[in-house]
Amino acid sequence: MLAVDIIAKKRDGLELTREELQWLVNGFLSGQVPDYQMSAWLMAVYLRGMTMAETVALTEIFLASGQQVDLSFLPTPVVDKHSTGGVGDKTSLVLAPLLAAAGLTVAKLTGRGLGHTGGTIDKLESIPGFTADLDYEGFIQNLRAVGLSMIGAGPTLAPADKKVYALRDVTGTVGSLPLIASSVMSKKLAGGAQHIVLDVKYGRGALMPSLEAAKELAKIMIAIGEQCGRKMRAVLSDMNQPLGYAVGNSLEVKEAIDVLQGRGPRDVQELVLALGAELMVSSGFSSGQEEARERLELILAKGAAWEKFVQFISAQGGDPRYLYAPDLLPASRHQLLLKSISDGFVVQLNGLMIGQCAVKLGAGRTTQDGAIDHAAGIVLFKKEGDRVRVGEPIAVLHGANMDLLETVAPEVLAAWQIGPQPPVKRPLIAAVLRPPLA
Amino acid sequence: MLAVDIIAKKRDGLELTREELQWLVNGFLSGQVPDYQMSAWLMAVYLRGMTMAETVALTEIFLASGQQVDLSFLPTPVVDKHSTGGVGDKTSLVLAPLLAAAGLTVAKLTGRGLGHTGGTIDKLESIPGFTADLDYEGFIQNLRAVGLSMIGAGPTLAPADKKVYALRDVTGTVGSLPLIASSVMSKKLAGGAQHIVLDVKYGRGALMPSLEAAKELAKIMIAIGEQCGRKMRAVLSDMNQPLGYAVGNSLEVKEAIDVLQGRGPRDVQELVLALGAELMVSSGFSSGQEEARERLELILAKGAAWEKFVQFISAQGGDPRYLYAPDLLPASRHQLLLKSISDGFVVQLNGLMIGQCAVKLGAGRTTQDGAIDHAAGIVLFKKEGDRVRVGEPIAVLHGANMDLLETVAPEVLAAWQIGPQPPVKRPLIAAVLRPPLA
Repeated sequence: MLAVDIIAKKRDGLELTREELQWLVNGFLSGQVPDYQMSAWLMAVYLRGMTMAETVALTEIFLASGQQVDLSFLPTPVVDKHSTGGVGDKTSLVLAPLLAAAGLTVAKLTGRGLGHTGGTIDKLESIPGFTADLDYEGFIQNLRAVGLSMIGAGPTLAPADKKVYALRDVTGTVGSLPLIASSVMSKKLAGGAQHIVLDVKYGRGALMPSLEAAKELAKIMIAIGEQCGRKMRAVLSDMNQPLGYAVGNSLEVKEAIDVLQGRGPRDVQELVLALGAELMVSSGFSSGQEEARERLELILAKGAAWEKFVQFISAQGGDPRYLYAPDLLPASRHQLLLKSISDGFVVQLNGLMIGQCAVKLGAGRTTQDGAIDHAAGIVLFKKEGDRVRVGEPIAVLHGANMDLLETVAPEVLAAWQIGPQPPVKRPLIAAVLRPPLA
Repeated sequence: MLAVDIIAKKRDGLELTREELQWLVNGFLSGQVPDYQMSAWLMAVYLRGMTMAETVALTEIFLASGQQVDLSFLPTPVVDKHSTGGVGDKTSLVLAPLLAAAGLTVAKLTGRGLGHTGGTIDKLESIPGFTADLDYEGFIQNLRAVGLSMIGAGPTLAPADKKVYALRDVTGTVGSLPLIASSVMSKKLAGGAQHIVLDVKYGRGALMPSLEAAKELAKIMIAIGEQCGRKMRAVLSDMNQPLGYAVGNSLEVKEAIDVLQGRGPRDVQELVLALGAELMVSSGFSSGQEEARERLELILAKGAAWEKFVQFISAQGGDPRYLYAPDLLPASRHQLLLKSISDGFVVQLNGLMIGQCAVKLGAGRTTQDGAIDHAAGIVLFKKEGDRVRVGEPIAVLHGANMDLLETVAPEVLAAWQIGPQPPVKRPLIAAVLRPPLA
């Protein structure tokens, strides 16, 4: 085979065989196919697309390039949730212990954040002592003992995808749906869960700008998972404004604790229940969404999910005293209260701007290995639809020094759009996709 | 600027500014823009196209990256012809001395052949002593003294195009019309001619498969040239079968000598007169095509073009004795006569196959620096429309050894398709384009 022929075939809109894809990816990994040929191929894929058969094949090739976790020997169904990334998204911190408390096994290989979307491990690492750096035996042991473990997705997971992704990042080929889907799913499939629910977000703060694009991506990821023998579901959720009120690592842990203790923002709770109900039904633990939802609400209300959370954090080295006294979690020396300069209703709260400002405050990283400030972030007081008056507090910024807070403050303020009329309310969850798909 | 932003802009079908193109090409030349970004951009251009403004800008950027010849001080109009490449195309060998004999100055920076299409310099170098390796002073001197000179297009000519072309070659991005046009025209414009006629060939043996594609390419090249202040014309000629009867370097020189001496194949003569007439009118030397044609026919008939050819070859070191006795030109030790195995009419003679077989016999090179056998090639006896009987000679192969001839023979034979009815005759010249274009 010749790389230039494979490039030309895709360029002309033809379907590549599994053998051709395998040859190309192997060649790229070994260095036989240079990066300039791979990037030409990636651009051809971006503009010509890939068929489902190609996308599934590419995912399996990525998957097979690295380590795969086998959890089929565990007695209870193994489940996992994947979010395409959002601002203020602490869903996993609540959902995972909730499902473990319900009797499912929650096995999560997860990543750190990059850019304006946070990462679950970053959030958990704001709890002193917590580590996601367990070996395989530790992971299994915790899954057996606690029913829940989260470890970092290391370099041995789908290394072919990692190398391809690095090239996509610098060649304008990130935003291709089949490439996104195969990249995400190759890492998800390596994790060993049998039932996977996807939280595919859309809107200003999300990877996918529109509901339609999010649906398209969700359908591709569902098809890949199902063809690889997994049970897949997807929830399409709104990410035009941040989820909940807290954005930033320790700030979000505190908010997650609130939700686990039966308080906390309604939208976080609603999304957790929706995602959880799908996995409860998919795994056969509940007979329908309504029953699943009621059961999960009861578990939350009884405090069982909260107890499971404490158990999970402790098992991975986290000091439980911080969970019982969240005010002791890392907190910023400096805070700045922002007050509204307008009167009316919040018509729009730009999730992307809030996410980007949180990064500027130190809550996120802009490069793969950048350091983060676990205490930094933004706490919102007013969200879309809320009534707001001049001089009323709308947010508090948390950061390492006052200069930084004051520099970022005007940008944060610009994220709110205040108007005379309340906006039309959008549902948090626009759709749920369950196979078979039309 | 960021390369990834420029790639994304083109990927999304937007028009790039001259500054963005300049930045990208400069960066690629300096190494600041790595080849994997350039190849992603090239694929985006292949699939999204370029506007005329972008194509002109890219051509001028390529042009400005290297040396440019200024011939505006010469007293007579300076003309040039460019062919997009064909099989058996010895047009330049006849056209150039013919126009010089008519009083025009013919300045040609030209290349060697690659693949199945021959190069003018390769053909001329089959004449012992001839060199295209003149310096600028020698070139000017010959233009003044003879009215005609041809020198090799060296590495100082549009080096940016050269580097980009090498990348296109290995990334499936050669066949993009705006990229082809800017590549060809940047080198053509560097040559200093004020009047340029393009011979844009279409069909099996040509770069462009169809008349429509050839027309499209011709229009782009004309627009580039006109916008850069040149007077442009294009002749669209059929290259489904080879031009003339001889394919191979010294074999083609012999055929060119025949035409210069008033003999030789009609199709070669017809194309030469069509191309020549355009330049005669464009440069103001004739008032119309008819008059130009008659004048050029007269010059040919009087032997003035032939004398100019001898003068031109001699001025560049070629031994004129070989021109008067062409049988002394390099000739192959071995020849193989092919006879028809069918009876009927030549319905099709595949120019691409003949060209590729000639390369296999040694007449062309497959890599940039490959050696060639100046004597090797194919002489055809039967072309499309000809009556042919079983056992009648249809071609002679010329090559360095009998094994090679016998290996290639079946492939050569397969180039003829013989049928019971003569085919519908196609015109050699399908159209002539002259600005302003619709």
